[in-house]
Amino acid sequence: MTQPTKFLLDESSMPTHWYNVAADLPVPPAPPLHPGTLQPLGPDDLAPLFPMELILQEVSTEREIPIPEPVREVFKLWRPSPLVRAHRLEKALGTPAKIYYKYEGVSPAGSHKPNTAIPQAWYNAQAGVKKLVTETGAGQWGSSLAFAGALFDIDVQVFQVRVSYDQKPYRRALMETYGATCVASPSKLTNCGRAILAEHPDHPGSLGIAISEAVEVAATHDDTKYALGSVLNHVLMHQTIIGQEALLQLEMAGDDPDVIVGCTGGGSNFAGIAFPFLGLQLRGGKKRRIVAVEPLACPSLTRGKFAYDFGDTAHLTPLTKMHTLGSTFTPPGFHAGGLRYHGMAPLVSHLKDLNLIEATAYAQNACFEAGVLFARAEGIVPAPEANHAVKGAIVEALRCKAEGRSQTILFNLCGHGHFDMSSYSAYHAGKLVDQPYDEAELAMALAGLPSVPA
Amino acid sequence: MTQPTKFLLDESSMPTHWYNVAADLPVPPAPPLHPGTLQPLGPDDLAPLFPMELILQEVSTEREIPIPEPVREVFKLWRPSPLVRAHRLEKALGTPAKIYYKYEGVSPAGSHKPNTAIPQAWYNAQAGVKKLVTETGAGQWGSSLAFAGALFDIDVQVFQVRVSYDQKPYRRALMETYGATCVASPSKLTNCGRAILAEHPDHPGSLGIAISEAVEVAATHDDTKYALGSVLNHVLMHQTIIGQEALLQLEMAGDDPDVIVGCTGGGSNFAGIAFPFLGLQLRGGKKRRIVAVEPLACPSLTRGKFAYDFGDTAHLTPLTKMHTLGSTFTPPGFHAGGLRYHGMAPLVSHLKDLNLIEATAYAQNACFEAGVLFARAEGIVPAPEANHAVKGAIVEALRCKAEGRSQTILFNLCGHGHFDMSSYSAYHAGKLVDQPYDEAELAMALAGLPSVPA
Repeated sequence: MTQPTKFLLDESSMPTHWYNVAADLPVPPAPPLHPGTLQPLGPDDLAPLFPMELILQEVSTEREIPIPEPVREVFKLWRPSPLVRAHRLEKALGTPAKIYYKYEGVSPAGSHKPNTAIPQAWYNAQAGVKKLVTETGAGQWGSSLAFAGALFDIDVQVFQVRVSYDQKPYRRALMETYGATCVASPSKLTNCGRAILAEHPDHPGSLGIAISEAVEVAATHDDTKYALGSVLNHVLMHQTIIGQEALLQLEMAGDDPDVIVGCTGGGSNFAGIAFPFLGLQLRGGKKRRIVAVEPLACPSLTRGKFAYDFGDTAHLTPLTKMHTLGSTFTPPGFHAGGLRYHGMAPLVSHLKDLNLIEATAYAQNACFEAGVLFARAEGIVPAPEANHAVKGAIVEALRCKAEGRSQTILFNLCGHGHFDMSSYSAYHAGKLVDQPYDEAELAMALAGLPSVPA
Repeated sequence: MTQPTKFLLDESSMPTHWYNVAADLPVPPAPPLHPGTLQPLGPDDLAPLFPMELILQEVSTEREIPIPEPVREVFKLWRPSPLVRAHRLEKALGTPAKIYYKYEGVSPAGSHKPNTAIPQAWYNAQAGVKKLVTETGAGQWGSSLAFAGALFDIDVQVFQVRVSYDQKPYRRALMETYGATCVASPSKLTNCGRAILAEHPDHPGSLGIAISEAVEVAATHDDTKYALGSVLNHVLMHQTIIGQEALLQLEMAGDDPDVIVGCTGGGSNFAGIAFPFLGLQLRGGKKRRIVAVEPLACPSLTRGKFAYDFGDTAHLTPLTKMHTLGSTFTPPGFHAGGLRYHGMAPLVSHLKDLNLIEATAYAQNACFEAGVLFARAEGIVPAPEANHAVKGAIVEALRCKAEGRSQTILFNLCGHGHFDMSSYSAYHAGKLVDQPYDEAELAMALAGLPSVPA
């Protein structure tokens, strides 16, 4: 085994531009709609929530958008991230496939989320914003925005889903270490939160409710804006630095992926690894299989409807056309909190609808089994979310073995599991349950989707 | 700020040899003694515990010892580790000093410990050993050896101090993820453990007791050896890859440190960063200040006696001459478990005795304050142990500021704090206590040191 393991780029080779897949789409995606008028949103409709630079990125069809120099300076703390050839995993599987993973767990927050938290905080700071409000589930996004706020002197307030706030205090401690304030959601700080608590004083919270609270605070305070960690076009675009680095690194390796795998919750880490490769294909390059892996308990891409829906519970957000399980759908509890969202990024949904990407879903025990196999071979313990990508990559590698084909598989290892070891404890103890979602509840949630004239 | 941030070595530039400071010492260190005969130990005395290759490394005076190729192959999963210029910390402190940190938290276990766990497991595997037994406190070492065991197909059994086993289940989950078995110590598996439990059924355990249990198991089973994560000469030598990489990286940076800082518990991460620089000095090179930082609650180098003592509680280990607080001394509780040991590595102690290194001690709240400042500037949340090195580096940087001198400071950031966020929670809540050690207990422990004729 004298072949190289890691492919490292010097920080001077870090990409200078984000890649915007909107420039290369064969069909433009359906526009987001104002929830009152059902008319396409204009930039001004979003101005209470986001600074104009990010709104312009949201609607841009420019292929390349420059990464501001101060943002690249911060990225140099950990980027370019390593691309690693998984020699030991290949050997453990006995596969003729070559497996590469792009490792985003090297960021200070331990995941890919700072890739968008840093530019979002910077654009807000440039616009004079003093405070950013956001939601978080397990806390990967909240801790990343907290980190970004510390660097650009912006106060960060995080509404954390109460059940995570109570059960997983360590990411909260991380947010507080970076100087952010963390509030259990539903809270008494918002109309939306108070209304829910009045009916259900012990409500465990949900991502949809926490989004509603954060949006309400941002919309009602002049110096305060909102930040979202996934789903939106500009957020997905910020993550494309992952795939662009991987392109350069695979060139160093003299290799070219046949299959690209990422896990999908809101869609951002998947988009980050996939879009730059997809862009090459859309401009006439090699056709690759691009596989989104989602949890079987929250299968928006594989079981949801491609329709207009709200992003939150209180229906404060615009309507976007996406694969959705319905904004009233409550997925059963599972340990990949970052994938537990009723909707999917409109851009990822659109690509799925155009058959430009594939989607598949696995139960959590199968994903943890894959993650443990990976850890024992490669050392890194993946985050529960990332275990879905590991599982997807292993399935592809075993298919190659069965077919006797030496394909090249690239997957995004979007974060480490050091904050999530309690879920590994549960897995080792045989206490993880593969609880299916409630089919009747899904049917009801889908039946209740907002009616939008074609 | 267009100066480089990270200095990365390609894996092909990874050092091929460990540096053995024993080759360059002006005076040889006092030999370890057999606890029964008080005669210097021979290699055969250690044979029940360690494979012969490691015993030979323990007593070697060769300057360079080759790193086996399979060990280097594993290291490529994360090594060479980055050297980072702490631009933002410098700015936050307003210091003219240049601060560099070598970041060992990129390893799969999140600390420097795999640097010795991997070669120890490999040499044992080569010698046909089927099982390794060790002790661990908070779990950094245990999880690193578990990782190493997974790679070389060796069973790993870890005796974890009971209080940590009960209170910090996440590193245990990490050990189990790598396939190791973790036992709360004192346990009923050993004579030593049973004797203690007979008197104190609820004994919280200590590192000294856990060492006794692990040594007993190794000494009484033919296919089983013992592994130690610090203190011993060969363990310190395995860590010198840190300083050797830093030498190459500082050359890339065109810089040369005036002060080198590391935290010390058993002494291995400090030795790792310091010895290669010290070796240059001992061979006629530049004189640098080398500063060991230890916890005020367990100050072996600054308050201990330089004398022969046991490494464990049950007095099963050889006697080594070291700075010690006495093997019966119980330090008060504090959150840097990796620094909570009554003794210091004999080599580090010897160098302190020769005035070739300095030592200083800080209370834990001051170290956490430094760690939070570092996190908000540089992103990485340091492990509580590493916070001592951060504190030491900040003290030096502020001295440079007061003196108006632009010195270069290098410190070892030996691990991240993602497993230790409960201690940050306690710090943020104002609940961390700087409990001093008991002076009377220290005096008694020192009075009880074994008597060894000069």
